[in-house]
Amino acid sequence: MLTTNPFDDDHLHEECGIFGVSGSDGAAALVALGLHALQHRGQEAAGITSFDGAHFHTKKAMGHVAGNFDSEAVIGSLPGSVACGHVRYSTTGETALRNVQPLYAELASGGFAVAHNGNISNAMKLRRELIRRGSIFQSTSDTETIIHLVATSNYRTLMDRFIDALKQVEGAYALIVMTPEGMIACRDPLGIRPLVMGKLNDSIIFASETVALDVVGAEFVRSVEPGELVIVQGSEMRSIRPFGPVAPRPCIFEWVYFSRPDSIVDDHSVYSVRKGIGQQLALEAPVEADLVIPVPDSGVPAAIGYAQESGIPFELGIIRSHYVGRTFIQPGDKVRHLGVKLKHNANRALIQGKRVVLIDDSIVRGTTSLKIVQMMREAGAAEVHMRIASPPTKHSCFYGVDTPERAKLLAATHDLKAMTDFIHADSLAFVSIDGLYKALGRSERAQFRPGYCDACFTGDYPTTLTDHDDTGAVDQFAMLEERVA
Amino acid sequence: MLTTNPFDDDHLHEECGIFGVSGSDGAAALVALGLHALQHRGQEAAGITSFDGAHFHTKKAMGHVAGNFDSEAVIGSLPGSVACGHVRYSTTGETALRNVQPLYAELASGGFAVAHNGNISNAMKLRRELIRRGSIFQSTSDTETIIHLVATSNYRTLMDRFIDALKQVEGAYALIVMTPEGMIACRDPLGIRPLVMGKLNDSIIFASETVALDVVGAEFVRSVEPGELVIVQGSEMRSIRPFGPVAPRPCIFEWVYFSRPDSIVDDHSVYSVRKGIGQQLALEAPVEADLVIPVPDSGVPAAIGYAQESGIPFELGIIRSHYVGRTFIQPGDKVRHLGVKLKHNANRALIQGKRVVLIDDSIVRGTTSLKIVQMMREAGAAEVHMRIASPPTKHSCFYGVDTPERAKLLAATHDLKAMTDFIHADSLAFVSIDGLYKALGRSERAQFRPGYCDACFTGDYPTTLTDHDDTGAVDQFAMLEERVA
Amino acid sequence: MLTTNPFDDDHLHEECGIFGVSGSDGAAALVALGLHALQHRGQEAAGITSFDGAHFHTKKAMGHVAGNFDSEAVIGSLPGSVACGHVRYSTTGETALRNVQPLYAELASGGFAVAHNGNISNAMKLRRELIRRGSIFQSTSDTETIIHLVATSNYRTLMDRFIDALKQVEGAYALIVMTPEGMIACRDPLGIRPLVMGKLNDSIIFASETVALDVVGAEFVRSVEPGELVIVQGSEMRSIRPFGPVAPRPCIFEWVYFSRPDSIVDDHSVYSVRKGIGQQLALEAPVEADLVIPVPDSGVPAAIGYAQESGIPFELGIIRSHYVGRTFIQPGDKVRHLGVKLKHNANRALIQGKRVVLIDDSIVRGTTSLKIVQMMREAGAAEVHMRIASPPTKHSCFYGVDTPERAKLLAATHDLKAMTDFIHADSLAFVSIDGLYKALGRSERAQFRPGYCDACFTGDYPTTLTDHDDTGAVDQFAMLEERVA
Amino acid sequence: MLTTNPFDDDHLHEECGIFGVSGSDGAAALVALGLHALQHRGQEAAGITSFDGAHFHTKKAMGHVAGNFDSEAVIGSLPGSVACGHVRYSTTGETALRNVQPLYAELASGGFAVAHNGNISNAMKLRRELIRRGSIFQSTSDTETIIHLVATSNYRTLMDRFIDALKQVEGAYALIVMTPEGMIACRDPLGIRPLVMGKLNDSIIFASETVALDVVGAEFVRSVEPGELVIVQGSEMRSIRPFGPVAPRPCIFEWVYFSRPDSIVDDHSVYSVRKGIGQQLALEAPVEADLVIPVPDSGVPAAIGYAQESGIPFELGIIRSHYVGRTFIQPGDKVRHLGVKLKHNANRALIQGKRVVLIDDSIVRGTTSLKIVQMMREAGAAEVHMRIASPPTKHSCFYGVDTPERAKLLAATHDLKAMTDFIHADSLAFVSIDGLYKALGRSERAQFRPGYCDACFTGDYPTTLTDHDDTGAVDQFAMLEERVA
Repeated sequence: MLTTNPFDDDHLHEECGIFGVSGSDGAAALVALGLHALQHRGQEAAGITSFDGAHFHTKKAMGHVAGNFDSEAVIGSLPGSVACGHVRYSTTGETALRNVQPLYAELASGGFAVAHNGNISNAMKLRRELIRRGSIFQSTSDTETIIHLVATSNYRTLMDRFIDALKQVEGAYALIVMTPEGMIACRDPLGIRPLVMGKLNDSIIFASETVALDVVGAEFVRSVEPGELVIVQGSEMRSIRPFGPVAPRPCIFEWVYFSRPDSIVDDHSVYSVRKGIGQQLALEAPVEADLVIPVPDSGVPAAIGYAQESGIPFELGIIRSHYVGRTFIQPGDKVRHLGVKLKHNANRALIQGKRVVLIDDSIVRGTTSLKIVQMMREAGAAEVHMRIASPPTKHSCFYGVDTPERAKLLAATHDLKAMTDFIHADSLAFVSIDGLYKALGRSERAQFRPGYCDACFTGDYPTTLTDHDDTGAVDQFAMLEERVA
Repeated sequence: MLTTNPFDDDHLHEECGIFGVSGSDGAAALVALGLHALQHRGQEAAGITSFDGAHFHTKKAMGHVAGNFDSEAVIGSLPGSVACGHVRYSTTGETALRNVQPLYAELASGGFAVAHNGNISNAMKLRRELIRRGSIFQSTSDTETIIHLVATSNYRTLMDRFIDALKQVEGAYALIVMTPEGMIACRDPLGIRPLVMGKLNDSIIFASETVALDVVGAEFVRSVEPGELVIVQGSEMRSIRPFGPVAPRPCIFEWVYFSRPDSIVDDHSVYSVRKGIGQQLALEAPVEADLVIPVPDSGVPAAIGYAQESGIPFELGIIRSHYVGRTFIQPGDKVRHLGVKLKHNANRALIQGKRVVLIDDSIVRGTTSLKIVQMMREAGAAEVHMRIASPPTKHSCFYGVDTPERAKLLAATHDLKAMTDFIHADSLAFVSIDGLYKALGRSERAQFRPGYCDACFTGDYPTTLTDHDDTGAVDQFAMLEERVA
Repeated sequence: MLTTNPFDDDHLHEECGIFGVSGSDGAAALVALGLHALQHRGQEAAGITSFDGAHFHTKKAMGHVAGNFDSEAVIGSLPGSVACGHVRYSTTGETALRNVQPLYAELASGGFAVAHNGNISNAMKLRRELIRRGSIFQSTSDTETIIHLVATSNYRTLMDRFIDALKQVEGAYALIVMTPEGMIACRDPLGIRPLVMGKLNDSIIFASETVALDVVGAEFVRSVEPGELVIVQGSEMRSIRPFGPVAPRPCIFEWVYFSRPDSIVDDHSVYSVRKGIGQQLALEAPVEADLVIPVPDSGVPAAIGYAQESGIPFELGIIRSHYVGRTFIQPGDKVRHLGVKLKHNANRALIQGKRVVLIDDSIVRGTTSLKIVQMMREAGAAEVHMRIASPPTKHSCFYGVDTPERAKLLAATHDLKAMTDFIHADSLAFVSIDGLYKALGRSERAQFRPGYCDACFTGDYPTTLTDHDDTGAVDQFAMLEERVA
Repeated sequence: MLTTNPFDDDHLHEECGIFGVSGSDGAAALVALGLHALQHRGQEAAGITSFDGAHFHTKKAMGHVAGNFDSEAVIGSLPGSVACGHVRYSTTGETALRNVQPLYAELASGGFAVAHNGNISNAMKLRRELIRRGSIFQSTSDTETIIHLVATSNYRTLMDRFIDALKQVEGAYALIVMTPEGMIACRDPLGIRPLVMGKLNDSIIFASETVALDVVGAEFVRSVEPGELVIVQGSEMRSIRPFGPVAPRPCIFEWVYFSRPDSIVDDHSVYSVRKGIGQQLALEAPVEADLVIPVPDSGVPAAIGYAQESGIPFELGIIRSHYVGRTFIQPGDKVRHLGVKLKHNANRALIQGKRVVLIDDSIVRGTTSLKIVQMMREAGAAEVHMRIASPPTKHSCFYGVDTPERAKLLAATHDLKAMTDFIHADSLAFVSIDGLYKALGRSERAQFRPGYCDACFTGDYPTTLTDHDDTGAVDQFAMLEERVA
């Protein structure tokens, strides 16, 4: 099977996007639009939960928001002025609907729905303990752990129980919670995953990225801050900070690849940062060439930056098919060995005889880079120079990003020379870690308070990694799991 | 909307059928066949769970067993030598997959799957208490209560926890439970719902009715006894009786309508009992007539009995379409008022000018009886006498049978004369309650130890009805429930 | 693969049912109901064409009428006061939608739609000639030949062109034709296939069987006569008989098996004829026994007749599952060799130790009879006597009935003794050909003008069989055909 | 309903793409890949026909190639070494499968399949005449006319009949025909629609664009010439030119918008021509501004040309969602009036306070241009200048391109000033017709032999327009048509 996404499979993938609305009639319709704008953060499943003052209503589906959440019938089945939703990139084979969020539970205090972006890094340890005490899990999602901690907390009020639960979990979380009393949005103390707040008339909106505010016509207010809980009850909004002060570490990869270029993440325009990285690359790794060619579409902003800084013309040397949204199962044995270019095709007339600089955002396994260099050579390129708009990706992420195991990361096992040989390029360069911080307005990476989580580049993880230091647990957990056909 | 089942909607409906196999490779294939044979006990959804020695595997589907559980792919996804399944007649609007059984939970002791026929009559009270203590329910099914009671029991071994749970529940249950250690089959102390045991080569089989044993080619061994737990572990089988001695009260409606005529329920052939009721009816309520006509298909055995006893010829005066398995949404306003006979049609050539005795198994609302009497008259019948092979249905059932609320039961609000008028018959008679017991080999109904649950006829409920004496609870429960689109 | 219809595959199958309405608003809704009542005449596909005074509208679907033609949306897409429809039993693998009727063509005179029950026995010869002259066929259906003959006829008026076409075709046809001018219903000169006329308020209805008139609440008027064309234009109706006088030969198998027992075919009640055959069988082939048992459902009327004539009690010894409408793909190798009784099950408690007379309507290949005799023996029957309510089926049908090739007909290759041995019965008897005619009110079969087509029993074909005397043609035709995936 | 394609609906649409392979085992697999690469030429339906030496096999589907033609099962059902396929953009509501190509007919000479890009401009006149003579059409497609002309031709050999047919048709056609003898590819005498020939090992390939050759790894050989028939029989290939010499007029809009930028159409790189038009625009219509912004994706090459010529930086000011392949039915009344940006979103951080030059390829109705100018203003643009990389579109196309009726073409009813006002731009300019020819390497448009069909800009139609001078015919034709639900 070949897919129409041959190049995309060499990317890290954000696992989730979340969106919530409080105080707007027909809130679910806005959530559907918002999730559609966040579709790039999770393409395998989506869900929306609404609350109409009496009942919670939920609809989940495998697949995209469009096609599943855009009919009057579906939106009509999700009444109420409060709603939240979730798009999901499944990291494991277990793509059953029961793992699709928002998750819901009926607590003694009433209904409780939660949408989560991130990953609880001690979820398995907590789960084992909760099961020992009689809790029954309905999903294999780490998020459900939070709900059981709330349900079984010894505190009395829901808010105390929720804070009690959050204090027991480690890792990354941006959460939108719905209860009969209102909506709670929060970010973990380090603010690893993003979450912004907006305003549309009298309603409050939370979203993983500002682009989702743009799409619904809402005004951007501010980011939810690391460690902050924003509580919306009717027209009232208040904020609490139950965790002590911690230096934030938002994920730097949001600017490299995850977020859309038209989003503003924690005060930086994603497009500008990417262009800045391209300019930095041109300064750090110049090359004599005829054309600057982006690997579409994620390499385009950095390529524009590189071209502007270097003065080498920006050209579309690789044309991307518009029809790549879905898998194309390549039929027939015969064609399997043809140079199939279902997604991208070289613009031969342009490339023939030229020295080209290819700009891509990152290299994960390197398989795609190899194919794209070959495509340039087959189209007659005289030289192929690869420039990467991020440092080498050498470490796995445990905070809600789908990373291959370390052994499969090209940069974890190859030095620059070996990587250059692997992809058959005439030269290869990555932006430096300091160059990356420069594009974010810093002068360099500060070793002790870097200000961002860059563990995938540096291995400097900002939290303990309970479950992952304890591999046996993972197996035992899998063994107990029910397989749903 | 008219359906192809216009007459069927005037029946009580059994809510479930269950089937389990232990000790046969490819157990799920046998379960699929067994459930197909039990399809009349529940037509809205089905599920199968298998255990392969390491993992539990589950597949659930809305709709019939055929079409959902008859492909190699589905059966192949349910490996293992132990499996159980469930067919379900949904009693409420909540037909979501999460309520389809077998239910599964991961307990500290390992996986735990359960298929349940019956109804726990104090489930809502128990549920409120469990939620108060931190349990999170994944379904609105009463069955899940049992699992949480097991999960939170203070006893140590799984068997002790299970018995502890059963001792807290009231009502009717025939259960098949699967754990990593083996299969447990049990019936409540009164044995309200049926459960039989069979043998196929070296494997043990449990089923709601013997017809399911016939279909898989298994030998009937005996009924699971009221209050008995049969535990199968590999090739070993043992039986325990943790409840004190109680006089059994199996549901008498199994012989009237629920069970298939070719089943043997607690030692009585269903076909013979139905013929016997017909003979009893002929003795109790004779009439001068030309033809005995069954209301197909459930009235046939009693009609044969009536015809043999009375000497009036048995004839097919109503022809049933073969194509009534599914709903036929009647299109068009114009035709809505035609005498539509999508399911049944009068055999006019036969009926014209004749005095007919119609035999049906029961009257619930009476709407169907009215239509069928009219159909006979339109076909030219000279006289129409209705004979019913059960006593008047006057009371609701709370033990796993779908009954309309009491006010809608024709016999709860009309005397015989009024009922005769309602259905426009020339005469109407029901078999007497003693006549019914005679067909089961008794001389009459014994007032203090009747030996059967006949509460729908007599109002003599054999258990307390905790939830139903406490109607407010029902509403509150509904309010908390999440609506899944 | 086993199916839930293990016994049904040993029947001849009628290939089609047709139904037409002229002069009723929302005619398509009536057609849907009528086709549903005729579903037993063709279960693989259905189609309806309506005419709204300006446009023809068509909907075709594989599968049953219920589920495909019972929504407001579908019926709403078929506006107009004139409509006709067709249900189809596909005889070959080619079940593409393009072969589903009504067929439609745009002729110089306007639209022309046709629904056909029967088979044109010189269709392939005509087709070759038409293609040679430039006609392009859109289906592999014999019916399309008629349309091309109309399109290319040298006559001027549509009616003359239609009659010209009919005079060139051989074989069996009951047709309902729609043109902008009105509806034409006709039967071939021998009247091989049935067609009746009814009245509902001011509208005229045509149907293959009277049961379809009953279902829509219409009054039966009369049969369309062999060789008659009935032309309905608005409120006017006229009849023409363009063929010379021919002695009719309607298909006798309609009474044996094809038509529903509640239909009246050419003045005989199907139920009464079947009972009469059973009585005749009891006279011709008596046996000492304890029970008369019908093979459900088609053997029931003859069994009632046999029981009444012989005085042996009629009992339900075989119980038919209600859930056999669809294929059940038997999962798993293991269960393939079990005695699976998905469709029928013996009523063991009844049969044990008894001498039984089984009554079935016909034997085609004999495979089902063998299984059912075995089922009786496994249930403990002391003796099993088989009585068949038709003469031995020895010849293929070429008039619109699906028959196996002659070599597969048990009676074509075995004498009575060999057949008895093949099915393992203690005795076997068929009703005599004269006995069959007696049940139809004759004293015997008249050799030279029998009055019915009974070629499947006697080999006395009432027409020439052009295509079938010319087997090479069949192959060539198949070779040219496009295979549509 | 809003769709994710709000901007796309203001484009002319190519109606078809075709692809054929002769001489490669598993030809259908190559056709599926080729059609996928041509998907932009027709997105509503697709079909493939293969020939295995004995039978023709066809599969058609509504929707995209991916998802319908990429499974082993589908490709396996299309065996043979010769195959052709078609993608279709439906121009009318009649999107029934029967109109999906390739069309097939069984002629006296054997099977005949045809895939057609273009439009026969006298099809309705020919159709009326053919029906009068007894031909029966199976589709409402103009292409079928060609097949009936072949079927009823008085010539003897298939090739003579085919040429006889082509001589009777007017308009535009690129055809791929399959017969048992081989494959024929041809272009109309003016060569209005494109068709190229390629080679992959020993097999010959025909395709609408070179990009489809790239995707299957084939080598580009040459264009099929206007008026040329290329006949491939096994390994032999020959070429005939049955029409007299005519000056070619290929459609100039292929370079403006229809073809993919990585295709080479009649010797010109599409990307280079588009960049050249952008450069020409910069010379003809300069403006003082800060940013050159393409309307994605079709405006990108011209924007690069404009930026390079003008020295104004090229930037991504509009971000296109990746998830726009399908319709998004906008739920809820409330959100209908929000500024919804499901497909495109302004890159606010970039645009704020800037003077922008927007580059788009064409303006049809102008509605999209209006929205996009507004989007720029809402994002804070100081000035918005629109530059269009084609001359004003003032006339309908009758050669296989979907154009709105003339009254809806903005340029047909507005002068430049009025258009500028309509779209609310600060300035608006189109490239001149001579500028367009310059980008194709000419010095200007030659009035009497322009060399291209540019009727949509100039009204200079290269053929007579029989059907369209005769409007009554169109209505009558529609009236006879059967509506298929």
